[in-house]
Parts: sequence; structure tokens; C-alpha cells
Amino acid sequence: MVDLERSIYDYIHNLLFSKEKIMNTLNRRKFLSSSALLATSSLITVTANAAAKDPMPAKWDEEADIIVVGSGFAGLAAAAEAKNANAGNVIVLEKMRAPGGNSVINGGIFAVPGNPAQVKLGIKDSPELLASDMIAAGLGYGYPEKIKAMTEEALPTYEWTVKELGVQYNDKVGQEGGHSVPRHVYTINGSGSEIVHKQLAYAKKLGIPVRLRVYVERIIRDEDGRVKGLQVREGYRFPNAQSGKVKFIKAKKAVILCHGGFGADVNYRMKHDPKLTDKFDTTNQPGATSELWREASRIGGNLIQADWIQCGPWNSPEEKGMGVALYFAQGAAATQGIWIDCATGKRFVNELANRKIRADAVITNNNKGHTCIALADQTAVDLTIQKSRPGILDKQLERKVVHKFATLEDLAKQYNVPMDALQATIADYNKHQAEGTPDEMGRKIYKGAQAIGTGPWYCSILSPKVHHCMGGLETNSKGQVIDVSSDKPIPGLYAAGESTGGVHGAVRLGSCAVLDCLANGRIAGRKAAQEQNWS
Amino acid sequence: MVDLERSIYDYIHNLLFSKEKIMNTLNRRKFLSSSALLATSSLITVTANAAAKDPMPAKWDEEADIIVVGSGFAGLAAAAEAKNANAGNVIVLEKMRAPGGNSVINGGIFAVPGNPAQVKLGIKDSPELLASDMIAAGLGYGYPEKIKAMTEEALPTYEWTVKELGVQYNDKVGQEGGHSVPRHVYTINGSGSEIVHKQLAYAKKLGIPVRLRVYVERIIRDEDGRVKGLQVREGYRFPNAQSGKVKFIKAKKAVILCHGGFGADVNYRMKHDPKLTDKFDTTNQPGATSELWREASRIGGNLIQADWIQCGPWNSPEEKGMGVALYFAQGAAATQGIWIDCATGKRFVNELANRKIRADAVITNNNKGHTCIALADQTAVDLTIQKSRPGILDKQLERKVVHKFATLEDLAKQYNVPMDALQATIADYNKHQAEGTPDEMGRKIYKGAQAIGTGPWYCSILSPKVHHCMGGLETNSKGQVIDVSSDKPIPGLYAAGESTGGVHGAVRLGSCAVLDCLANGRIAGRKAAQEQNWS
Repeated sequence: MVDLERSIYDYIHNLLFSKEKIMNTLNRRKFLSSSALLATSSLITVTANAAAKDPMPAKWDEEADIIVVGSGFAGLAAAAEAKNANAGNVIVLEKMRAPGGNSVINGGIFAVPGNPAQVKLGIKDSPELLASDMIAAGLGYGYPEKIKAMTEEALPTYEWTVKELGVQYNDKVGQEGGHSVPRHVYTINGSGSEIVHKQLAYAKKLGIPVRLRVYVERIIRDEDGRVKGLQVREGYRFPNAQSGKVKFIKAKKAVILCHGGFGADVNYRMKHDPKLTDKFDTTNQPGATSELWREASRIGGNLIQADWIQCGPWNSPEEKGMGVALYFAQGAAATQGIWIDCATGKRFVNELANRKIRADAVITNNNKGHTCIALADQTAVDLTIQKSRPGILDKQLERKVVHKFATLEDLAKQYNVPMDALQATIADYNKHQAEGTPDEMGRKIYKGAQAIGTGPWYCSILSPKVHHCMGGLETNSKGQVIDVSSDKPIPGLYAAGESTGGVHGAVRLGSCAVLDCLANGRIAGRKAAQEQNWS
Repeated sequence: MVDLERSIYDYIHNLLFSKEKIMNTLNRRKFLSSSALLATSSLITVTANAAAKDPMPAKWDEEADIIVVGSGFAGLAAAAEAKNANAGNVIVLEKMRAPGGNSVINGGIFAVPGNPAQVKLGIKDSPELLASDMIAAGLGYGYPEKIKAMTEEALPTYEWTVKELGVQYNDKVGQEGGHSVPRHVYTINGSGSEIVHKQLAYAKKLGIPVRLRVYVERIIRDEDGRVKGLQVREGYRFPNAQSGKVKFIKAKKAVILCHGGFGADVNYRMKHDPKLTDKFDTTNQPGATSELWREASRIGGNLIQADWIQCGPWNSPEEKGMGVALYFAQGAAATQGIWIDCATGKRFVNELANRKIRADAVITNNNKGHTCIALADQTAVDLTIQKSRPGILDKQLERKVVHKFATLEDLAKQYNVPMDALQATIADYNKHQAEGTPDEMGRKIYKGAQAIGTGPWYCSILSPKVHHCMGGLETNSKGQVIDVSSDKPIPGLYAAGESTGGVHGAVRLGSCAVLDCLANGRIAGRKAAQEQNWS
């Protein structure tokens, strides 16, 4: 044991000096930091073997200069810019029966610092201010240089959608939570479909085919490390991955991955966040699945921050998609009412905490089999949504996503809430409301809130829905996908939009998805067009 | 446009029904959920191509039945169990000049529900209670089945260390934050080195060679998807990855990856959390680098939750490693003093919030170039550490990691803190202390706290240090590494310890690292021993 012990003690002693030692080595080698040396030299040998060595197909069935995967905001923007940069033959592949992915069901709000509506109202804004808002909301997980490149592209991209695509916006400017100033524009029809329509028409005009029901089965990366094409299934019928005819399409310049997120893929999302079981619905279209997240990783792409998956905490399981119940749960119950765990009759979270904290709290209760409800009395709804959104309450009641009860007893009975605990919870809220002091959960009483107690009573069931994947492929600020072994771009491979990470960090701010997809799609398309043909 | 619009509207309409459609398909196919079908069927074709097809070496320089990579708690536990399960020839490879990795500098506290010290004190505990503590602290990011397997292995593993290895523990039981009951045992020398020593002696007894300075350059995964061996550099001299002689070692049964975390690798940790720049030190040994994180991903391992990187918020940059300043910053300043951003003279976080929130807040300020300090007056230190840890303050002052000032002015001058702002901050603290109300940051005044104002004054500089990687390779509860494409185990590849994810989730509780490494190392070693030779 003696020699053994000595070696261990030498080692511990050595630790105290190792940093300096390394720094000296480094200074001699003119490296910036020890990690620079570690990360660089330790990979030189690996790099040579970095690529997954896929057999090249005996013959390619067809070829294109650039293949774009996905027909949402990002894919259509990348294709258009590549075509306009003289990339040659550009094609877009979409696995579903109709184009647009989640973009076509997106809310159509677009963060644009310096947009005309802001200017008209004299609102001071800048790419730097948006970048600082995004970095703060993202808990510092966003990549500063990517956020800088994207925010600087925002205004030019907005102008491009107006002048080149003919997208129509109304003359209002809006502000989502986490933004320092009102800065988003609204599409004329209140949907991303206005943008997607115009992008599809523009693609048609440019002669870019948008081929539907083409499923990408394999990204073909050659021994030399370059992505050279795709193995696809033409005539694919979602969700049967055995459907369609296998074809090999050669990409002479590049492949641009704009395949979106995996919100609809329960198995895969549970790998990254096991809480997101099949108990939870998604606001995404059903094609938002993981196959290209897996495949891009298999061929050496570096996947980052895939466990940051945004869920709306205020959604109702009694309606599909985003729905309308959230206006009650957020607008009335979170501000001047309470959120309750029906199993205990108690509050379980600060109803004004950020989305992540609130969604996690509801998810944890739901996974225990506890129903959670958002609750408000007549006074609360009168002071809030009845004023801010006239008519919405009637619509919510009519759709049976908000429920009305004459007495608190009736409500408690309906959801098996212990009545005494519920009354104690309300009494505690009223105490803090009267004192104006923050409660046990650190919630500060909302401005102008009244005591709770005037029936009739209203509630909606809470069940978060998976909405957006913040993580994804590591790309640089030019949209090049980074190799996990070498830290260098994978030749011939680009990505943009929800399939990439490092843009939103931990939390995506509302109105930044359209910006991310359009701006980064354009950046990737322009850069990919400059690639040299490999044959 | 008409046909185009119709297809889009068809599509949106279709979305409303697609879920039912899929469910019907699924019911017919007897699948549990849509995602089950998506994840399964969509991958059948990919699976065949899942492995990175590395060329097999012309000849293997040597062979072993099982190769364990890393000589910390996990690696040495895996090797011993594999050997005792008649795996045959088992070898351990360590890239550094001495064995033990971070384990040898670990604090030596080990969470064991049902340990003798608990029993003697009549403390009721169970694997289930520990599991629920871990899942709650991990924000639900931990994999329940893995946590169950590990916590059930805790007591048998503790007994194994005593009876088989001869590890000595004192007769006390301790409790770290987040644990429901006191449940950890302490090694006799207050360090993980007590365990590592005994593991190394045991390995020697079993005839398991622990080979130092052997760097793993490549994991060799064959066309059939199986890991068949390693490309290494013998005689490697950290950190020069070009040093040593290249050798190919065949693994007839399995490779077990116990390579630990990447806390010392600034470039790589910044990919997952860009805040963790080279401004920040680490408590880890310098060999805690990323090369095998990258390589395991390259050959098709699924990496999860790598962005959850634990930093101690209370460390001082004026000492190496964990140090002693934290006892002041946490024990005195966080409980009965304040934490200050020197640039503003204001508090910037709830000093009693969880580690993640506090570390992120300090890191964000540090990255802006702001110095943050923990501050307490004479009353605060007298009420806290002077009682709980007699003599520690003198040691902290002597080591110049806690600094003493006769007046608040002197302290403010030393760190360029705006004096008026600092006084206002203290006045606000005293107001809430007098009222007993939570302050703006939701901090509840600590039990028995007094108003701040009695000099002399004490402070320590705050600079979080990277401590533990919660994420890592996805493994199942048997320690098999999961393939990113197929969701099936990669034949011949196992992992345990800090190199794996899904055990601690978002936050690792103190005293659970030793448990993770020893218990999961043993589980992986036993299972790997059952693999059939491939040749």
C-alpha cells in the first residue's frame, strides 16, 4: 500500500499546482486557456475519425445543389435565400401531407426591434436591447454571438417579408412577457399562416419545389466527414415509417435541416424530461417527432440543451392545442384568484412565477394523479377578463373549458376538493390581500385585487401542453452544424429554427420563434449557397 | 394559390382530428400511445444504420474480457464486481498519473438509508424516501426506475464497502440540504480517499491491473453495432493528447465507461452552459475533461441533461478547490447578513434560494465584470459560525479568504461599493428584520437574526466553482448505454457514475455522488460480466 498511498498523496499535492503547470505549458504554446489546449489537442486524433462512416449508395436516384428539410418558416426562408444567392437547384422536402409544420398554426407575432409601428409610437428599441432581454430570460444559456447575429437580422428580415414576400401586418405593436418594450408586429390574420402562404407562393415563383410526403430516413455522411445526401421515403404516409419508396438524393452543395422540434414525441421528450409523460398534450402538429434529432446526433452533430422544453402552465386538457381557457387561468385566476391542488385544497405554486416553475409544479401534481384547477370568483373575473377581453368568458363557458358554480361547495364537490382546506386557503389569501404582504409562496398581491368570496365561482382545469423545444443542434452564427468531436462545422450541413439550440437558452420569449426561424433560416440559406460542389 | 390554400386549410382541419386518427391506428396495432408508434416504427429503418462504422484495427495489440475506463469510485466498483462475477480478465485504464479521479478528493459522505448509525438513533428511513427526495431536488429530471435501482442498492453497497473492502466510517450520521432525514455516513478520514484506497487494495487482491497514463482516444464500434474495443495511448502525459503510444485493446465482453464529468473543460462546458466561462474555477481535478463525452456521443450514445452543471454559489476565488470561505458566505452572510453586487451596492438574489439560482445570479454579475461579496457584521458571525464552527473564522482570516474591516466605509472603499446604496440596502434589510416580513427577493428573515450594524465587518468574495455534471450518457437501470437511434442498449457498452445522466436530474443532493458511483458501478459491473464474448 505504501507506494500506492504515496502516488495518491503526490497526486493530491500535484493538484494544488497543476493549474499553474498547465498555464505555463499553455503560455509557451500561446493558448488562451487550459481548456483551449484540452479541447483542441485532445481532439486532433478523434477528428480524423469523427464522421459516422455511412456506405455511399451504389447510385443516387436524383440530385440537387441544396436540399432543405422542412417547410416551416425556417425551411422556406433558407430555400428562398439560397436560391436568390444563385445556389442552383434548391428543393424542399416535407414529410407531412401539407406544408408549414408548426409555423402554419403559429400565432403570427414577430419581434422586430425598430419596426415601423414602434417608430410611429416613438418606442426606442435596438437589436442589443432585444438580445439582452433574450439572454436574461434564457438564464444565460443562449449563445451571445448567435443571438447578436439573429437580432441584427430582425429588421432586414421583416422588411424582406414585406417587400419580397408581400406579407401583411396590421399597424399595431405588442409586448410579450420578458420584453423591455413593446416590439412585436402582428400578421394581418393573426396567424403564421399569412407568412407561410406568402413564403410558399414566393418559393413557387422562384421555382423551388416543395415536395410533400418525403420522409428523411438517413443523413448520409461520408468518410471524408462531409454530408453528401439523404436517404428518403417518397410517398410516405405519416406516421408509418415503412411507407413510401426508398430513394437516395445527392446534395451537391449542402443539406439544411429545418425539421423543427419534438413536442409530439412522448418517448423522446421523456428521455430529456421524464416528467413530460403521455398524460400531457402538445400544442404542436403531430409531425413534431424526433427522428431527425436522433439522426443528426448519430452522424456527429452536437445536441445541446434538449431538456429545456417549454410548456404553457395554463392550458386546459378539455380543448385541443393552445385553446382559450388560458385567458381565464392566467388573466383572472393567476392575477386575482388562486391555483389549487384538488387533492389537498391548497395552493402549490406562486401563480405569478415564470412559466417553467408553474408548469413544472402542475406537471408534478398531475403525475401524482392530482387534478389542479385555476379558481376565481365573480369579483375577480369582473375586474379582469370581463374588462380586458369582453366576450371571452362566455366563449370559455360555451366551450365548457371554464366551468361556473353557484357556490364554492358545488365546485369543491365537483372536483373532490376538501372544503375546509379550501376555505383555509382562501382565508389566507384574503389575509395577505388585506395586509398587502407577500404570501408563503412569495406571491405579491396583484394591483387592485379584492378579497375572494363573491360567488358565482369559476374554474378551469390546468394541464400544461408541450409547446417549444429550446435546445437542438449546436450551430455557429452562420447556421453551420458543429461536429461533436472536432468543434468544427460539419461540411455540407446547416440547420435553423426549432431544430437548433443556443438561441433561446432556457426560456423562449413570446414573438421570438418567428424571428428565430426566419432570420436564422435566411442566414443559413445564404451561407449554404456559398458551398463548393463536392462533385 | 387556391389548391395551396385548400391543402393548408385541410391540414389545419386535419390537425383537429389527427390525434384520434392516430389513436385508432394505434389501437388496431395494439400500441400504447401515438408516440410509441412514432418512436418505434420511425426508427426501425434507422436502427440498421445506427452504429458509427469504425474500421476494425488490422490487429489488436492486446485483449481483455472487460475494460473499465476510469479509476474513481465507479470504475473500481465496476471492475471488482465484474471480476467477482467471473468476467475473466478485467483491466482498469486511467489517463492521469495517479488513480482516483475526483473520488480521491471527494468529501467522503455517503447517503445510505437504513445504515447502522441511523438504526442506533432510531431514524426511520427507506430507499423510497431517498428516491422521493432525489426526484424532488432534481426537479423531476431524474429517471425514476434508475433512482429506484440505485437507492435499493445503497445499503448492500455500504455493507460491501465495510465487509469486502474494509472501509472505515465513524459512528455519526449527517444530513445535507434536501434530505428528509439525517442519512449519510462519514468515512473515518473525512475523504473519499478512504474508499478509493481500499478499492485499489481490493483490486490488487483480485488481480485487476489499474493501468495509469492510458488515454482512451477512440471507442471502436463495429458495423454490427457492437463496441469491440478501444484505441488508446499508453504512456500518455496529461494534457498532451499526442503523447504516448497508440495501441488497440480488444474488449471481448464489454467496455464500462466511468470517465467522470467535464468540470475542468471550459470549452466543452460552455457549449452546454455558456455562462461557465474561464472566469470560473472548478473543484474538480484537472483531468475532468470532455473527450469521452464527445466520443461516446460520436459512436451513437445518447447524451442527456448535460447543461445541468452544479456550481457552489458560495466559493471564493482567493483559494483553490472547495476551500473554507463558504462556511462564512453560507453560514454567516447568507443566514444573518447579505450578499452584495459591489458595482451597485445592492443585493441581487435571495441568499437562501437554491444553489442553482444563487450560482447563476453571481455568475451573471461576474460575467458583467461585477464583483460580488458576502457580507456580515460582528453580531452575525457571533450568532452563527462562531458558535457552530469554533475557530473557523480565525482560519478564514488567516488564509485571507474572509476579510475584516473596522468600519463599513473601509469595506466599501476596498471593493468600490457606492456607500449610500450600501447603507440603503442594509436599512432595507433591517426594516424587514424588524417587521419579520419577506423582502423584495422573497427572502424570509432567518430565525434569530438581528439588525445589521455592529462593526467590525467581515466579507468574502463570491465566485462559483464548477462542481458536478448531473447529465451524461443515457443508461438503463442495468448500466447499459442506450443508442440514440434505436433506443436499445449498445451491445458491449456500459457506463456508471458522473459520466451518466438521469440519476440526479437537475440538482445532485450532497452525499449522493458516492452512492451513485459505487452502487451504479457495481450494477454495471455485474451486468457486463454476463455478456457473451464476441470472439
